[in-house]
Amino acid sequence: MADAGGEPDHLTGERATAHFDVDAMKVAWAGSQHAVEVADRMARLVASDPVFRKDTRTMLSRKELFKDTLKKAAHAWKRIVELRLTEEEANLLRLYVDQPGYVDLHWGMFVPAIKGQGTEEQQKKWLPMAYKFQIIGCYAQTELGHGSNVQGLETTATFDPSTDEFVMHSPTLTSSKWWPGGLGKASTHAVVYARLITEGKDYGIHGFIVQLRSLDDHSPLPGVTLGDIGGKFGSGAYNSMDNGVLRFDHVRIPRDQMLMRLSQVTREGKYVHSDVPKQLLYGTMVYVRQTIVADASKALSRAVCIAVRYSAIRKQFGSQAGGPETQVINYKTQQSRLFPLLASAYAYRFVGQWLKWLYTDVTQKLEAKDYSTLPEAHACTAGLKSVTTSATADAIEECRKLCGGHGYLNSSGLPELFAVYVPACTYEGDNVVLLLQVARFLMKTVSQVATGNQPVGTVAYMGNIQHLMQCKSAVNTAEDWLNPAAVKEVFEARALRMAVNCAQNISKAPSQEEGFSELSPDLLEAAVAHVQLIIVTKFIEKMQEDIPGPGVKEQLQKLCSIYALHLLHKHLGDFLSTGCVTARQGALANEQLGKLYAQVRPNAVALVDAFDYTDHYLGSVLGRYDGDVYPALYEEAWKDPLNETVVPDGYQEHLRPLLKQQLKLSRL
Amino acid sequence: MADAGGEPDHLTGERATAHFDVDAMKVAWAGSQHAVEVADRMARLVASDPVFRKDTRTMLSRKELFKDTLKKAAHAWKRIVELRLTEEEANLLRLYVDQPGYVDLHWGMFVPAIKGQGTEEQQKKWLPMAYKFQIIGCYAQTELGHGSNVQGLETTATFDPSTDEFVMHSPTLTSSKWWPGGLGKASTHAVVYARLITEGKDYGIHGFIVQLRSLDDHSPLPGVTLGDIGGKFGSGAYNSMDNGVLRFDHVRIPRDQMLMRLSQVTREGKYVHSDVPKQLLYGTMVYVRQTIVADASKALSRAVCIAVRYSAIRKQFGSQAGGPETQVINYKTQQSRLFPLLASAYAYRFVGQWLKWLYTDVTQKLEAKDYSTLPEAHACTAGLKSVTTSATADAIEECRKLCGGHGYLNSSGLPELFAVYVPACTYEGDNVVLLLQVARFLMKTVSQVATGNQPVGTVAYMGNIQHLMQCKSAVNTAEDWLNPAAVKEVFEARALRMAVNCAQNISKAPSQEEGFSELSPDLLEAAVAHVQLIIVTKFIEKMQEDIPGPGVKEQLQKLCSIYALHLLHKHLGDFLSTGCVTARQGALANEQLGKLYAQVRPNAVALVDAFDYTDHYLGSVLGRYDGDVYPALYEEAWKDPLNETVVPDGYQEHLRPLLKQQLKLSRL
Repeated sequence: MADAGGEPDHLTGERATAHFDVDAMKVAWAGSQHAVEVADRMARLVASDPVFRKDTRTMLSRKELFKDTLKKAAHAWKRIVELRLTEEEANLLRLYVDQPGYVDLHWGMFVPAIKGQGTEEQQKKWLPMAYKFQIIGCYAQTELGHGSNVQGLETTATFDPSTDEFVMHSPTLTSSKWWPGGLGKASTHAVVYARLITEGKDYGIHGFIVQLRSLDDHSPLPGVTLGDIGGKFGSGAYNSMDNGVLRFDHVRIPRDQMLMRLSQVTREGKYVHSDVPKQLLYGTMVYVRQTIVADASKALSRAVCIAVRYSAIRKQFGSQAGGPETQVINYKTQQSRLFPLLASAYAYRFVGQWLKWLYTDVTQKLEAKDYSTLPEAHACTAGLKSVTTSATADAIEECRKLCGGHGYLNSSGLPELFAVYVPACTYEGDNVVLLLQVARFLMKTVSQVATGNQPVGTVAYMGNIQHLMQCKSAVNTAEDWLNPAAVKEVFEARALRMAVNCAQNISKAPSQEEGFSELSPDLLEAAVAHVQLIIVTKFIEKMQEDIPGPGVKEQLQKLCSIYALHLLHKHLGDFLSTGCVTARQGALANEQLGKLYAQVRPNAVALVDAFDYTDHYLGSVLGRYDGDVYPALYEEAWKDPLNETVVPDGYQEHLRPLLKQQLKLSRL
Repeated sequence: MADAGGEPDHLTGERATAHFDVDAMKVAWAGSQHAVEVADRMARLVASDPVFRKDTRTMLSRKELFKDTLKKAAHAWKRIVELRLTEEEANLLRLYVDQPGYVDLHWGMFVPAIKGQGTEEQQKKWLPMAYKFQIIGCYAQTELGHGSNVQGLETTATFDPSTDEFVMHSPTLTSSKWWPGGLGKASTHAVVYARLITEGKDYGIHGFIVQLRSLDDHSPLPGVTLGDIGGKFGSGAYNSMDNGVLRFDHVRIPRDQMLMRLSQVTREGKYVHSDVPKQLLYGTMVYVRQTIVADASKALSRAVCIAVRYSAIRKQFGSQAGGPETQVINYKTQQSRLFPLLASAYAYRFVGQWLKWLYTDVTQKLEAKDYSTLPEAHACTAGLKSVTTSATADAIEECRKLCGGHGYLNSSGLPELFAVYVPACTYEGDNVVLLLQVARFLMKTVSQVATGNQPVGTVAYMGNIQHLMQCKSAVNTAEDWLNPAAVKEVFEARALRMAVNCAQNISKAPSQEEGFSELSPDLLEAAVAHVQLIIVTKFIEKMQEDIPGPGVKEQLQKLCSIYALHLLHKHLGDFLSTGCVTARQGALANEQLGKLYAQVRPNAVALVDAFDYTDHYLGSVLGRYDGDVYPALYEEAWKDPLNETVVPDGYQEHLRPLLKQQLKLSRL
C-alpha cells in the first residue's frame, strides 16, 4: 500500500537540520551522562519485556486492567530482585512501566510516613516487612467529606487504657476514608490519619499503622469495610489504581501502632510531646513536591514529543498545483502554540533539578537545626507544584488539540496522558489552596521588607524594592529582549508590584483576614507572577552554568527566551498595568518571539529526541520515533474489540428489526 | 448513617435566597413557554424509561457500550413512532438520550446532504427510505491523511461510460475514509466525498451516495472494507459511536448516485454545471454551526450546574471552634472562577438564539438571491463556533477542577462531559483554521473601510473607525462599568484596533500572503477579540428586549456585566496595549467584578436550576437537584465491577506470591 507520509525516511530529514548535538542535549536534560545511561537501560529493559506491553491497555475492562496492574507490579518486583537493581534503577523501572498502582503508594507514601513519623523502634519493626513486600501499605488521609482541610478529618482513634489499645472508628458517612491509592483492593496495611482522643480530650490529627486485611487470605479484618471508589477519568489512566474507601467500626489496634516520633500516648493515656521538632516533617514535603515538579516535566515532555513529531509528519493545505502539502509544524499558528510548551518542558526540567538541590539544602539545614529558610522553601515548593502541574495539564490537552482529530484517538496516547496526569492539580495540595499559601507568604514578606528585613532565597528580589517599584524597562529593540537581565528585571518588577498592590489593598480592609479573603482572586495572580519569576530565574541561572556540547547552550538560551517572552505576552496585562513594560515593548517581545520560533523550527524534532523516550514509554502511534504514523494508526484500529466481527453484536436485536421495519410497537 | 451534608434540606436554603422568579428565567433560557414545556416533557419521558438508564455507562466494555447504543437508538425510534412525536419532540428526545450514535449522523448529516445537494428526483428516491430507517446513512468526508483541507481528499470516483457507472476507489492508505460517525458498524449507506474524474480530467470533490452493506445481512459489499477506528478519549463518551474506516477497491455505483444538484455528469461523461448557485450550500453551514453554538451552551450549562450545586454543598476550612466549615461557593477564588462560566453559559445561549434568527435571515436572503451578506454570516458563524467550543471545553474541565478530587470520579459526570464534548473543537472546522478565516474576512473589511465601504452586520462597528481608533474610555468609577455603552465601546475599540494593527503589519510584508502567514498568531487574537465583541453585543442587545418575570432581567444584566468584565480582565493586555482602557480603569473593572460576584452568590443555585435539567440528563452525583451528594457518591462506588468480590481477581496469581515471598525467580 502506498505510504503518503510523503518521504520514505519520514523524520530523518528533520533530524538532519538540527544545529546542536543531540547526545549532549540528552545529558543536559537528564542531568548527567550516568543518568542518561541508566534511564536508557531501564527504559529498554521495560520496552523489551512482553509483560509490560501496554498497547491494549485502554481496551481492558476495569477488572482486567486491575489484574494486569497486579501482574506488572509482581513482575517488576521479580525483575528488580533478580537483577539486583539499585534503588535508582528500580525507581526508573517502575517509572517506565508507566501504570499507576499500589506500588506507588507503598514506596511513595507508606514507607516515607513510617520513616518520617515512626520512632526508631517502629521503623525497625515495620520497615523490613515493607521493604520485602511482606506487607503492602497505603496512606489513608483524605476522607469523603474532607480533603484540603486535614484538620477537619473525622475518623477517631480513641485510647482505651483498659486494654492498652486505640479504637479506630468512622463516626459519620463523610468520615469514610476515600481516595487513598492501593487501599481498595491491594493493601494489607495503611497509615491512617485520625483524631487522637485520650482522657476525653481531642488532640487532633495523628498517624496510626493499621492492619486492614488478613495476611492469610487477604480478607478484610473484622470491623473493616473496604472497597474501590469506582471508575475515574479516561479509559485506562488511573483506573489501574484501586483508589479506595475504608470504614472502621470500632477496630482495635495496639497502642504502639500510633506513629510516635513527634508525640506519644503513654500506657496510662497521657498525651506527651517529644522534643523532636515538628519542622522535620517539612523535609518530606519538599521532597514530595520536588518529585511532582519533576513529573510535570516528564508528562509535558512526553506530550510535546508526540505533538512535535506528528506536526512534522502531518501535512495539510498549502499545496500549489498538486504539489505536496505543508507540514503543519511550518504554520506560525502551530509554532506559537507548540514551541512555548516545548520551552516549558525544559523550564520545568531545570527548575526540578534545582529543587533537588533545594531538598538537599533543606535537609542539611534541618540537621543543623536551622529552621529559618523553611517558610521560604515551603512557599517556593508549594507554588512550583501548583504552577507546573496546572500548566502541564493544560499543555497536554493543547498538544492533543495540536494533533487534530487523530489526537482524540486512544492510540495517540494523549487522552490517556491527560487523564492520568490531571489529578496532579488536586493531590498533595489543591493548586488554588497552595497558591493562597504562597500569597500569604508574599504578604508577610512585603510587610517585613517594609520594616527593613532582608528576604532570602526565591524572595530575595523583594529586598530590591526601591528599584523594582519604579524601574522602567530599557528595552528598545526586539533583540534587547534576548538579554536575560532585561527579562529578569521586568518579571521581578511585575511580581513585586502585584504583591505590593495586594498588600496595599488588603490594608484598606476592615481586617487583615477580610482583606485577604476579598482580594484572594488578585492574590492568586500575584502568586502566579512570583512563581513564574522563579522558573524564569532558574532557567536563566542554568544558562550561566557550563553546558557542554556543540550548540546545546545556544538552543537552550533560545528556549529560555521563548519561555519568558511567551509568558510576558500571555500576561501582558500584568506587565502593562504595573507599568514596568510599555505597549511598544510588549509588541517588541512578541516580534522577538516570532523570530525565535523560526530559529527553533529546524531543531524542534531533535529537541524532543533529547528527552530520549522509547516508543513504548511514549505509547503513541503519532509520536513514533520513525514517524511512520499512518500505517500504525491503521493497524491499531483493527485491535479494537468492536472489530472482532464485521457485523456488530446487537445487529440481530436492534438494527435488523429497524431496517426491516419490524420494530414491535406497543399499542398505546 | 449520619449525613454530613450539614443541612437536612441541602439546597432548599440556597433556593430561598434567589432574588428572581426561576420559572420566568426558565422561559428566558429556553426561549418560550412552549420550549420549556416540551423540553421538560421529553426530558422526563427519557428519565423515566429504564432502557435509557446511563448510570453504568462508563463501566461497559466497548462492545457492550456499542450494543447499548444500538438498543437505545431502536427504542428511541420506537417511542418516537408510537407516540407520534413531532420533529421538535423527536430531536429533544434524542438530545436527552444523551449518547452519541449513528442516528446523529443519519439525521444530522446524511439526510441534510441529500436534501441540500441532491436533485429533486434523488431526494424523492432516497429520502423516504432514510425517513423510515430502511437505510441508515452517514457522511464520509474526512480521510486518514486529510481533514481540514477538503480539497486534498484522495478518494476517486472515476466515470466509466462503458457501464454508466462511477468507480469508487481508495488509491493510497491515507485516502482511507477515517472518522465518519456511524460508518464503522451501523450504516448501510454513506454520502462519500471523492474526486470526480471523467474524460481523464479531475473535477475536484463531489458527493456520491454509496451503498456499503447488504440490506439482507449487513455484511460489507464486495470491494468495501469497513471497520471501527478504535477507542477514543474517555470511558463512555464518544466510544458509543462507531467512527469508522472505509476503503474502496474499485467499487461501482450507478451514475445517478452522484449528488447532482449543483453539477452533473452526463451519460456520455460530460461534466456540466447546473445553474443552481453554489452559495445555497452556505445555508446548511450556517445551520450546522448554529446547532454547535447551541450545543456549547448546553454542555457548558450542564457542567456549571454540577459545579454550582456541589460548591454549595461542599464545605472546607473556615470553621471557628468546631463550628461548621464554609461552603466552598463562598470563597472568592471559587466565585471568580465559577461565576464567569455561569455567565458564559447564558451568553452562549443568547448568542445561539440570535444565530437561529440569523439562519432564518440568511435563508430568506438566499431565496431572494441576495448573496451580499453571506461572507459576513460565514465569518460570524465560523468565529462563534470556534470561540464558544474552545471556551466550553476549557470551562468543563475548569468545572471539574472546581469540584476538587470528586470531580475526577466518573460518577461526577464531568470526565465524560469533557471527553464527549472536546471533539467539537475539531469537527466541522478546526477552531484555529476557522479563526484564520475570520481574520481573513476582518482584513478584507478593514481594507474596504479604508476605501469608504460601509460594513454590515457584526462588522458594522468597523464603519465607526474614526471614533474607535482614538476614543478613550470615560469610565471613572467601578459602577461606570455597569453601563453597557461603556463596555461596548471598549470591546469595539479593542477589536478594531487589533485588526487595524494586523492589517498595517501585513502591509509591511513583501507580500500579502507572507504577511498573513507571519502575522497569523496575532490574527488569531484579533479574530477572538472580534468574536468576543459579537457575544458581548448580542448579550447587551438581549437586555434591551422585554424579559418578563420578577427580577429576571436584573439577574441577567449582572451576568452580562460579569461576562464582559471577566473578558476585559482576562485580556487586559489587549485593552491596555491598544490604549482604549487605562490601568486604573482595568482595576475598576476588576473591583466591579468582585461586587457582581457577591450579588450573584445568593442567586447562583437558582440560576442553574433555570436550565431545567433532570438528574438523568445531568448524570452526576455531585449535581443532584436535592444536593444529597455524599450518600450518592458512596452508593455509586459499589457498582464498580471491581467491587464484585472483596478479594480481587489476580490475588492468587500476583499478590499472594509476593506477600508470601514465593515469587519464582529465574536463575540468571
